[in-house]
Amino acid sequence: MKEKAKAVSRRDFLKVTGGAAAGIAVTGMAWRPGEAEAAAMPKKWNETFDIVVVGSGFAGLAAAYEAKKAGASVVVLEKMRTPGGNSIINGGVVSAAGSPMEARDGIKDSPELLLKDMLTAGLNLNHIELARLVAYESNNTVQWTINELGVKYKDSLSQEGGHSVPRMYSTYNQSGSAIVTQQLEKLKEIGVVPRTQVLLKRLLRDTDGRVKGVEIREKYVFPKENSGATKFIKAKKAVILATGGFGNDIALRTIQDPRLTAGLESTNHPGATGEALREAFRIGCTPVQLSWIQLGPWGSPDEKGMGLNPFFAQLCCAMYGLWVDTQTGKRFVNELADRKIRADAIIRVGNKCIAFTDANGFAIGQKMLGDIMAKIMERGVVKRYDSLEAMAAAYNCPIAPLRESIANFNKGVASGKDEEWGRYLQKNQRAIDTAPYYASRLMPKVHHTMGGVNINVEAQALNVEDDKPIPGLYCAGEVTGGVHGAVRLGSCATLDCLTFGRIAGRNAARDKTWG
Amino acid sequence: MKEKAKAVSRRDFLKVTGGAAAGIAVTGMAWRPGEAEAAAMPKKWNETFDIVVVGSGFAGLAAAYEAKKAGASVVVLEKMRTPGGNSIINGGVVSAAGSPMEARDGIKDSPELLLKDMLTAGLNLNHIELARLVAYESNNTVQWTINELGVKYKDSLSQEGGHSVPRMYSTYNQSGSAIVTQQLEKLKEIGVVPRTQVLLKRLLRDTDGRVKGVEIREKYVFPKENSGATKFIKAKKAVILATGGFGNDIALRTIQDPRLTAGLESTNHPGATGEALREAFRIGCTPVQLSWIQLGPWGSPDEKGMGLNPFFAQLCCAMYGLWVDTQTGKRFVNELADRKIRADAIIRVGNKCIAFTDANGFAIGQKMLGDIMAKIMERGVVKRYDSLEAMAAAYNCPIAPLRESIANFNKGVASGKDEEWGRYLQKNQRAIDTAPYYASRLMPKVHHTMGGVNINVEAQALNVEDDKPIPGLYCAGEVTGGVHGAVRLGSCATLDCLTFGRIAGRNAARDKTWG
Repeated sequence: MKEKAKAVSRRDFLKVTGGAAAGIAVTGMAWRPGEAEAAAMPKKWNETFDIVVVGSGFAGLAAAYEAKKAGASVVVLEKMRTPGGNSIINGGVVSAAGSPMEARDGIKDSPELLLKDMLTAGLNLNHIELARLVAYESNNTVQWTINELGVKYKDSLSQEGGHSVPRMYSTYNQSGSAIVTQQLEKLKEIGVVPRTQVLLKRLLRDTDGRVKGVEIREKYVFPKENSGATKFIKAKKAVILATGGFGNDIALRTIQDPRLTAGLESTNHPGATGEALREAFRIGCTPVQLSWIQLGPWGSPDEKGMGLNPFFAQLCCAMYGLWVDTQTGKRFVNELADRKIRADAIIRVGNKCIAFTDANGFAIGQKMLGDIMAKIMERGVVKRYDSLEAMAAAYNCPIAPLRESIANFNKGVASGKDEEWGRYLQKNQRAIDTAPYYASRLMPKVHHTMGGVNINVEAQALNVEDDKPIPGLYCAGEVTGGVHGAVRLGSCATLDCLTFGRIAGRNAARDKTWG
Repeated sequence: MKEKAKAVSRRDFLKVTGGAAAGIAVTGMAWRPGEAEAAAMPKKWNETFDIVVVGSGFAGLAAAYEAKKAGASVVVLEKMRTPGGNSIINGGVVSAAGSPMEARDGIKDSPELLLKDMLTAGLNLNHIELARLVAYESNNTVQWTINELGVKYKDSLSQEGGHSVPRMYSTYNQSGSAIVTQQLEKLKEIGVVPRTQVLLKRLLRDTDGRVKGVEIREKYVFPKENSGATKFIKAKKAVILATGGFGNDIALRTIQDPRLTAGLESTNHPGATGEALREAFRIGCTPVQLSWIQLGPWGSPDEKGMGLNPFFAQLCCAMYGLWVDTQTGKRFVNELADRKIRADAIIRVGNKCIAFTDANGFAIGQKMLGDIMAKIMERGVVKRYDSLEAMAAAYNCPIAPLRESIANFNKGVASGKDEEWGRYLQKNQRAIDTAPYYASRLMPKVHHTMGGVNINVEAQALNVEDDKPIPGLYCAGEVTGGVHGAVRLGSCATLDCLTFGRIAGRNAARDKTWG
């Protein structure tokens, strides 16, 4: 049974075969499944750039911008028909700790407090050095979007669940598209236009460990796996992976959290699938915290995807109204608790909850959100009721405990403290007492995948074998894990994407040119 | 910038170079970091077996046994000086739903109820088809250890936290060594003796996707990374990875759960490190639920590792005594809740908890555990107090609320229902009222890593690229993920290991012989 032949080291093989330089290596170095046509390091590349950015959301565009500005040649690849990914349908809120608007409004805040909020939401599973960087850069990042990109924000701050204070900037149109549009504009000015319908098929990692380019499918038509034509693009400095999360990848998300079956809705765009993340793992990236997948608590069963209900449920109701369980007429959670606590609470009490507000809360929403409120009403997601009684009747909600819940909250408004749930009270908080009332039904939806590729503060992807950087590969945004720990705090995704996208772009641009 | 050369498919390359059959492939197929000496598919193997089993705990030994009995040639590789891994220091309890002992004792149980308990503890993150298999095979598995391996169990059932009923068999010596010893004995009879001090260095996966053997270090001295001599063992049918968890791998565990720093103790043996798991990911296994790492709630700060306190804290106290927070004198958790709930509760109230019981509870422990109780006392882990007052004084515990806590529990014993925490009451439950009292301090310790490699019910490792089986690779035991979901129910690890170890062994033996 024992074969006596001497073991041969790879170095010996290289001597025999002429080695990597001659384009030949030993059989055993290959390792992938049976597809004989699968990606290899091509003898010839179809195109060459210093930097190949995969993905065109906040992170990818920020990376491309910094890299190009630093003098590198850059191509941005996007698999969908239009750029922007989830970023373009994001709610357009970005936290800044220590901002000029906070100073103006007398809000006491600090990067350390933002970090603390992130860690609390993240159940202290955050990779703290990554989270710290995002928090401490938060105001710089937001100011950069204003001064460098020309993003326009509203003139008041808002507050998401889990934040100690109102610190969120909101784009003028209450959408991430306000940022993406500016990113695309500024990139165009310096000569970079994302190529759409280009699928990443392979990250090409060579024998020396470096990622040297990508195999792609041009004219790819999502989600047809084999559509498009194969090409190879060489990345002389680095590949930056900014392909987003996998909230709409049923297979990958159910492996990590089997509850999140196809029956569950998602707020994500259809392209939020995990093939690029799988590819990153295939070439040796370290997986981190994949099983933490966030549900947005403010979804509505009366519209598809993210929809518009989050604006109403959060701004009008979590800040100025209440969330109640219609089976009991009672509040069931701190409406400004983090997303996980609220989503879990809605599921726990049996998915029969509504968000509602009175005429005053609605007016604040209208002032802040304008058209959006009209659209929400048009869609029938939010309904108007002439009286509290009418609203209660519409949801079969017992009126007496509902009245009591409101009275208790109003007492808290008067005394300055929400005794029942400890909710942060706004400076302009008023009693809930003025008809008409407005309400929407709540349904948690798959929203954000906290886990992904393990990176360091330089946005370098780390190797599963030894936790050292993989040469030539940077990752940024939702495709990475660790920044948010177990639960992402609202309005920190954009920060995460912009911060690490910029770092990835800058570092990639000064990475060595290998060939 | 654009290179016009035509993209070359790997099939073209194979034509040019002579292809895999000639031992040559294209450069690009290689993908690992810069070590030029790293594993390649060797031209000659030092040894050949049908099946190479890596790891010699419950799972590895069960796999080797089934494979060998099915006619395959088998080698078992163990990196430590002695076989057995964590299994040999495990507490020796195994759940069986629908067992003869349950029938004798009139305990109503079913595989479905065990499954339900596993899913509840697992927060429904379990891969249900894997968990179901373990639960439904539980009695068969335990009876197999008795009838086929000759394992000796005590004549009474016990109950761990999270189980609806007492259904745990306990080995005669209250240690997994009673099972491992029999496994080793039976394996020896059929000619298989684990080779110790053999480190798995590489899983060798070929261009056709199949795992065809392993690169090892013989005469390896843990934990010296580069000790020993490199050899290659060919696996004509399959490699079975049964290398256990990574509870003692500080780097890997803090990537997944940054709270679990080096400052935290573990119950695991020193070899419970993650290099084999990393290697599995490197060659394309799918990661699953790595960030769920279990703390054992019943550790003691007064002894190292797993120690003996779990026996006392669980059997004498969680079943027949109480767990209290010494700062308040009150119970703080259902003492039979699952491990996560209890560990989290201890941490939440500030790590000042004790487990205690009275003379009656201690007597039951002595009857069940014999010598072990004497050892625990000798070590000073458990201390004896002449009176409740003396015990309270020793831990600075306020006596009045402590008395009240006991009185409340005793009322529950009389009425048949624990009103305060809803704990399952034993058939022979008695009031806690008889001096002397016995107590130990509680400290959660890193105990089990729920996540690992994704497998199917055939114990095949699944490919990160497409979720299909990786030919020639099976995984079993703690190196896999999914069976236990978020939180492993006590006494189900042994079941998991034995069940999937046996499946892996049987399937590997009838796998095709590739060469």
